[in-house]
Amino acid sequence: MKKPKILIIMGSDSDLPVMEEAAKVLDGFAVPYVMTIASAHRTPARTEALVKDAERSGVNVIIAGAGMAAHLPGVVASHTTLPVIGVPIDASSLNGLDALLSIVQMPPGIPVATVSLGKSGAKNAAILAVQIMALKDKALAKKLLGHRAKMQEEVEDKARRLKRKS
Amino acid sequence: MKKPKILIIMGSDSDLPVMEEAAKVLDGFAVPYVMTIASAHRTPARTEALVKDAERSGVNVIIAGAGMAAHLPGVVASHTTLPVIGVPIDASSLNGLDALLSIVQMPPGIPVATVSLGKSGAKNAAILAVQIMALKDKALAKKLLGHRAKMQEEVEDKARRLKRKS
Amino acid sequence: MKKPKILIIMGSDSDLPVMEEAAKVLDGFAVPYVMTIASAHRTPARTEALVKDAERSGVNVIIAGAGMAAHLPGVVASHTTLPVIGVPIDASSLNGLDALLSIVQMPPGIPVATVSLGKSGAKNAAILAVQIMALKDKALAKKLLGHRAKMQEEVEDKARRLKRKS
Amino acid sequence: MKKPKILIIMGSDSDLPVMEEAAKVLDGFAVPYVMTIASAHRTPARTEALVKDAERSGVNVIIAGAGMAAHLPGVVASHTTLPVIGVPIDASSLNGLDALLSIVQMPPGIPVATVSLGKSGAKNAAILAVQIMALKDKALAKKLLGHRAKMQEEVEDKARRLKRKS
Amino acid sequence: MKKPKILIIMGSDSDLPVMEEAAKVLDGFAVPYVMTIASAHRTPARTEALVKDAERSGVNVIIAGAGMAAHLPGVVASHTTLPVIGVPIDASSLNGLDALLSIVQMPPGIPVATVSLGKSGAKNAAILAVQIMALKDKALAKKLLGHRAKMQEEVEDKARRLKRKS
Amino acid sequence: MKKPKILIIMGSDSDLPVMEEAAKVLDGFAVPYVMTIASAHRTPARTEALVKDAERSGVNVIIAGAGMAAHLPGVVASHTTLPVIGVPIDASSLNGLDALLSIVQMPPGIPVATVSLGKSGAKNAAILAVQIMALKDKALAKKLLGHRAKMQEEVEDKARRLKRKS
Amino acid sequence: MKKPKILIIMGSDSDLPVMEEAAKVLDGFAVPYVMTIASAHRTPARTEALVKDAERSGVNVIIAGAGMAAHLPGVVASHTTLPVIGVPIDASSLNGLDALLSIVQMPPGIPVATVSLGKSGAKNAAILAVQIMALKDKALAKKLLGHRAKMQEEVEDKARRLKRKS
Amino acid sequence: MKKPKILIIMGSDSDLPVMEEAAKVLDGFAVPYVMTIASAHRTPARTEALVKDAERSGVNVIIAGAGMAAHLPGVVASHTTLPVIGVPIDASSLNGLDALLSIVQMPPGIPVATVSLGKSGAKNAAILAVQIMALKDKALAKKLLGHRAKMQEEVEDKARRLKRKS
Repeated sequence: MKKPKILIIMGSDSDLPVMEEAAKVLDGFAVPYVMTIASAHRTPARTEALVKDAERSGVNVIIAGAGMAAHLPGVVASHTTLPVIGVPIDASSLNGLDALLSIVQMPPGIPVATVSLGKSGAKNAAILAVQIMALKDKALAKKLLGHRAKMQEEVEDKARRLKRKS
Repeated sequence: MKKPKILIIMGSDSDLPVMEEAAKVLDGFAVPYVMTIASAHRTPARTEALVKDAERSGVNVIIAGAGMAAHLPGVVASHTTLPVIGVPIDASSLNGLDALLSIVQMPPGIPVATVSLGKSGAKNAAILAVQIMALKDKALAKKLLGHRAKMQEEVEDKARRLKRKS
Repeated sequence: MKKPKILIIMGSDSDLPVMEEAAKVLDGFAVPYVMTIASAHRTPARTEALVKDAERSGVNVIIAGAGMAAHLPGVVASHTTLPVIGVPIDASSLNGLDALLSIVQMPPGIPVATVSLGKSGAKNAAILAVQIMALKDKALAKKLLGHRAKMQEEVEDKARRLKRKS
Repeated sequence: MKKPKILIIMGSDSDLPVMEEAAKVLDGFAVPYVMTIASAHRTPARTEALVKDAERSGVNVIIAGAGMAAHLPGVVASHTTLPVIGVPIDASSLNGLDALLSIVQMPPGIPVATVSLGKSGAKNAAILAVQIMALKDKALAKKLLGHRAKMQEEVEDKARRLKRKS
Repeated sequence: MKKPKILIIMGSDSDLPVMEEAAKVLDGFAVPYVMTIASAHRTPARTEALVKDAERSGVNVIIAGAGMAAHLPGVVASHTTLPVIGVPIDASSLNGLDALLSIVQMPPGIPVATVSLGKSGAKNAAILAVQIMALKDKALAKKLLGHRAKMQEEVEDKARRLKRKS
Repeated sequence: MKKPKILIIMGSDSDLPVMEEAAKVLDGFAVPYVMTIASAHRTPARTEALVKDAERSGVNVIIAGAGMAAHLPGVVASHTTLPVIGVPIDASSLNGLDALLSIVQMPPGIPVATVSLGKSGAKNAAILAVQIMALKDKALAKKLLGHRAKMQEEVEDKARRLKRKS
Repeated sequence: MKKPKILIIMGSDSDLPVMEEAAKVLDGFAVPYVMTIASAHRTPARTEALVKDAERSGVNVIIAGAGMAAHLPGVVASHTTLPVIGVPIDASSLNGLDALLSIVQMPPGIPVATVSLGKSGAKNAAILAVQIMALKDKALAKKLLGHRAKMQEEVEDKARRLKRKS
Repeated sequence: MKKPKILIIMGSDSDLPVMEEAAKVLDGFAVPYVMTIASAHRTPARTEALVKDAERSGVNVIIAGAGMAAHLPGVVASHTTLPVIGVPIDASSLNGLDALLSIVQMPPGIPVATVSLGKSGAKNAAILAVQIMALKDKALAKKLLGHRAKMQEEVEDKARRLKRKS
């Protein structure tokens, strides 16, 4: 078992169906990660400890997902200078607009790299983490090109199946 | 000088013109307070220390104001079981909707008592804090009645000056 | 049966599934309450009478929930200097944004302590009410610490069950 | 001086620049009105008394303007079965969306006839009030046709001045 | 069969489940009405003809409901000086915000009395129409008082059934 | 088989249920089209090639549908001076507001003709394309009049079935 | 003087600073147009007559700009099968969101080609109109390529002036 | 002069006052960059060429800023597997909500790391880029700690100056 390079952290176990999309992508790239729960509000000390541990153990990127007043990514970012990626989760009646603004509108000095809402965002968070790690890992950079080529083929495949001419 | 009963905390000195409306109201009620700056993201340790200090020194209510992804009130609330009042500040191009949602949409377990945006909210935060303290302070409760009577007179005064009949 | 310390009031019986989350939390803290219905618009006199009764009978905090143009919390606040907590309810096609803005954007002078939308908000309203009462009740303050410790354990428990390492 | 047929009521004297647009339109139609201030929150008793007085003194329509959590039109409507017209006023950083939703989203049973935001709305509130009164006043109905013809001529006049052909 | 006093008009038959709430209220007040379909965009001539007919046949108030870019109430208002009540219908993915703004934000000169979104709005449109007609019909005015008393009793009834004390 | 005059392009095969509404309308007008998939982000080269091919093969109008950060219509427009019609698709939790703003708010110089969200928009995109082509095709212009007459009859038919008089 | 090919129509003379951006673009392409005022609500008959005249006199495309509840483009489209381009104008406190939704969310059957808000939109409306006319005018198609090349050069020019290397 | 490690690209020279905040931050960290203009829509070929050049010349991170339908960051991301950071710019009447949604809501497969609106976002984009580069550059990682310490001191300094006790 390799040392985790990515920490995936979510505010509640109800966020798991969204956040495991990130884990699946990392599995596909064979990038080792650890995934856990910490609440910015109910367990602030646990959150800080997890982040400090991650820094010490060689984690490169932290992916944090949360809904409502989604403070987790920002709180994580306040405890580290590692890149933090925030995934807004649609967990209230406001369609995730609350989570999106709570994550993306970070004040100057402490950035959070925000991706799209929900499962699309969780996938993109993982790809972004891989892109960041690929800057110092040529094998990973090559895998990214393969991943993109595969997406391209999938689109072309679907296009062949759908193409309709009147 | 009396021991402060209210801690007013803001994310940045640019929030001062808004937050000093709260201080003025407390001055009017002769409720002792301390007002300072702490950033949830740039100074998380300082924020936690201020909150713990406030708890120990007998503060009753914490008023926290912030703009953008306004995490300060929620982060304060994560460190205390004192009532926390959040003032959303209009400090970005999104008209304060970002701050409002970041403050009010707290997940279950850790409430933040949210008031209106900007100066109106800062005033109301102070009145709400006084209302809370008045539950155990009859003199303060009486002052609140006087405050309300005064507001009523002001409305009636203005009505007399404005009244127009065609 | 103890004298109620909290009045829970809602605009319509359709709000009950949301507002009874507040009642459950108060049950958990053994804080006596009374829960009833009053409409700001259909029964303005009843609303005022309930509030005046609550003041006289020693109620400490009023929790008011409403949807759409949710005037109930503000109307309640206009009749008392007790702290009023407003719970916006998602009861129209606008996802509760109407209720949220109608409750939180109170003009200066008459605050309403607004919490998050729907069931999360009803829970938080009750916790906030307990936090306010705990300022003069050490046993309650201790229970709050226990409540928070329990939430923390629940998060850690869930984290243990979910933790996944690639 | 004729008995007022319209009561114009506003939440604060800061709303006067908007609401006097309604008065000007009524002056144009020679419809007698009275214009005053009452706050739904700071002076609930005064608000109720004004409405009851209006009913007794033969007022036909009440026009109420307010900003922020604009409860005034709804509170007025809760005290009368006269038609109530609500003018949302842009008086906060949220561009009047708060006032609009607080006025228009009335629950079933107690309608408020809502018009557009700000000065346009104040003008339209007065015209709507005249349209309502014209149902039992043929002279007024005739004036309305004249008013519309005049608007039409103004558009045509402006069209003549602007018309440009390349 | 009495001559209709209210014209209810909707943009599409898919709006019927909403708009028949207005018809039911009018039935309750025994106010004669006619209900039909006309599209502002697909049948502009029919819309104009219906409005002109309504004026001639003694209709007092026109209630128009529409969704999406809901132009019907405004187009109706452009052809008459009768009071026009607009019901925004939630008929697109934007939750009716499109219909609400398209109806309420009428430019100065041509008002539309806008009510709340959907079924609540349709009910309120009918009550508002009755309130307008009651200005010249004392029997109707009395019925309105009865209607309001009944609503009040219903709230009190529900309150008795729900009342819970811990 | 005639040479296609319209290219319908969508970002993903999940957009097909929406976009085939455009195809059905074109079938009704017997306007030849080709419908395919290309992603602005996953297959930028394919997108450009499709557009250049379309230009060469005599396509008159391109209809492009996409959801989320819907860049496809704008990217298509960047590669051609043919008229491009954009259909925003409701494919995220934000109700299509993201797609709508991403398509309609094109900077000066490169227009996209934006239509309504979802299936209504796809239908209208096709009608708009036919309206554009009808400028040089009198038979098509005549068909458009027939199409509009048919819509009118449908409304009148529905009106006859629904008409209700109390 | 050539026969106008484009009709530019606006709801009010206050829209002129926005809409003359469209005229300037058409001047640049030497496309003849006529620009005038008509209000959908204040002058519905004038609006219809202008549209019918335009059809008869050989106009190809109608550009209609309006703010608030911007019905003008939709009303114009209800009277013609010519392509109609709608320019939403930011003329109220709601930042033009009201105009945008009122124009773009047309129900199925009657499209309006909507462009971006304000001056950018007015420019793009004119370019879109030229793109439509260029389908049957090779000289115009060539001018469009020149226009695009010029925009490209301007970007490159600005890039040369701005380019900064640390 | 060192080889640039960051490419800063903006859609228009009007974005310079925002984007040079990113340049200043990079100057502070002595990270070499190049800053230029390219429009996703007016110069798609130039945009692609710049991105491909950047990849070849060893650029690590691309920062792209744009307003309105802000496609530039997404279009850049479609041409590279380097990490792309998007800065939404408030350049229209919609307060930047259009730019924010156009940048952050990228479909699955092609992430853009989105930061806050305007100057705060430009600063944070640069800090995020430095955080990414610091993963393979210990000196830079150390500078980041210094940068954060300095921000902390600034907050404490301001707190000392502001601290007020009643």
